[in-house]
Amino acid sequence: MNFFEAVKNRTSYRGKFESAPVPKEDLIEIMEAGCDAPSGCNMQTTSFIAIDDPQLMSQLLGLVNPPIAGTAKAAIAVLTERVFAYRDKCFAVQDYSAAIQNMLLAAVALGYQSCWYEGHITDDDNIGRKMADVLGVPQNIDLVCFMPIGKGVDEPKRAKKKPFGERAWFNGYKK
Amino acid sequence: MNFFEAVKNRTSYRGKFESAPVPKEDLIEIMEAGCDAPSGCNMQTTSFIAIDDPQLMSQLLGLVNPPIAGTAKAAIAVLTERVFAYRDKCFAVQDYSAAIQNMLLAAVALGYQSCWYEGHITDDDNIGRKMADVLGVPQNIDLVCFMPIGKGVDEPKRAKKKPFGERAWFNGYKK
Repeated sequence: MNFFEAVKNRTSYRGKFESAPVPKEDLIEIMEAGCDAPSGCNMQTTSFIAIDDPQLMSQLLGLVNPPIAGTAKAAIAVLTERVFAYRDKCFAVQDYSAAIQNMLLAAVALGYQSCWYEGHITDDDNIGRKMADVLGVPQNIDLVCFMPIGKGVDEPKRAKKKPFGERAWFNGYKK
Repeated sequence: MNFFEAVKNRTSYRGKFESAPVPKEDLIEIMEAGCDAPSGCNMQTTSFIAIDDPQLMSQLLGLVNPPIAGTAKAAIAVLTERVFAYRDKCFAVQDYSAAIQNMLLAAVALGYQSCWYEGHITDDDNIGRKMADVLGVPQNIDLVCFMPIGKGVDEPKRAKKKPFGERAWFNGYKK
């Protein structure tokens, strides 16, 4: 798929998914796009766990309340290690965000739908940590995002955006 | 350009740029890709200033020490407003990182080179604020990233990455 087509077609998909399993090679290609994202000082603080085992998917989705992505057959969990790139400067959030964005676009380019679920699992009830424990993730590494991956059944809904002229200018602020 | 080709061809380009100006329509297309990135609760906390005025470029680049992108004829400055998406939760870093990643890929898809300069301008010497002041950016909005945009003259250098198997697994950590 053309790059700009992928950008335009990406939505935060919260609908139902087809029941067919997602081929491992597609999950690998999506995670490879995640690995290809840049990271501050090339620290590569982000790592990934694809989930396609049906029982494990049920177990993880059962931890999320209110529920999300109940019909998804596969997902990618995004892990971050919040280490300093230099002195006291940590770019782990930037690193995993760039990786997630690459993976959201890669999913679309391969004909899948996904969604960046972060706030929902990193809130005070700590769902991300519960998921991490199920997946055997060490305590020094945080699970910060859960991305369902699957072919969408429903029509994707596009987020309403501000006009371009309210967000982008030339040679000065609001110019 | 094919999506995966853009991902594979993106590098953090720190070489020289061609002297030809960058057409405004290309800078617009890159910033549109930035606007198309998702944001937490669709808050759209990120905005953009393209710089293609030669005097202004010189003035901004003159603020950066050690210097970067000295031969670039155009750049995009990335602005963020660190507002809460809900309660005390702010996703501004995630928002601008996703937007930057979209723009880095868009630049490559249009045949340009770029680089995510963030740490260099957000360090304790506050170069980003100095740039923001020159561009008339209000105090409640931070300039967090400076992306030169131009056709590269030098061979791009690819960052050395860890093997895929050290960063991505199936159905469990390091599985």
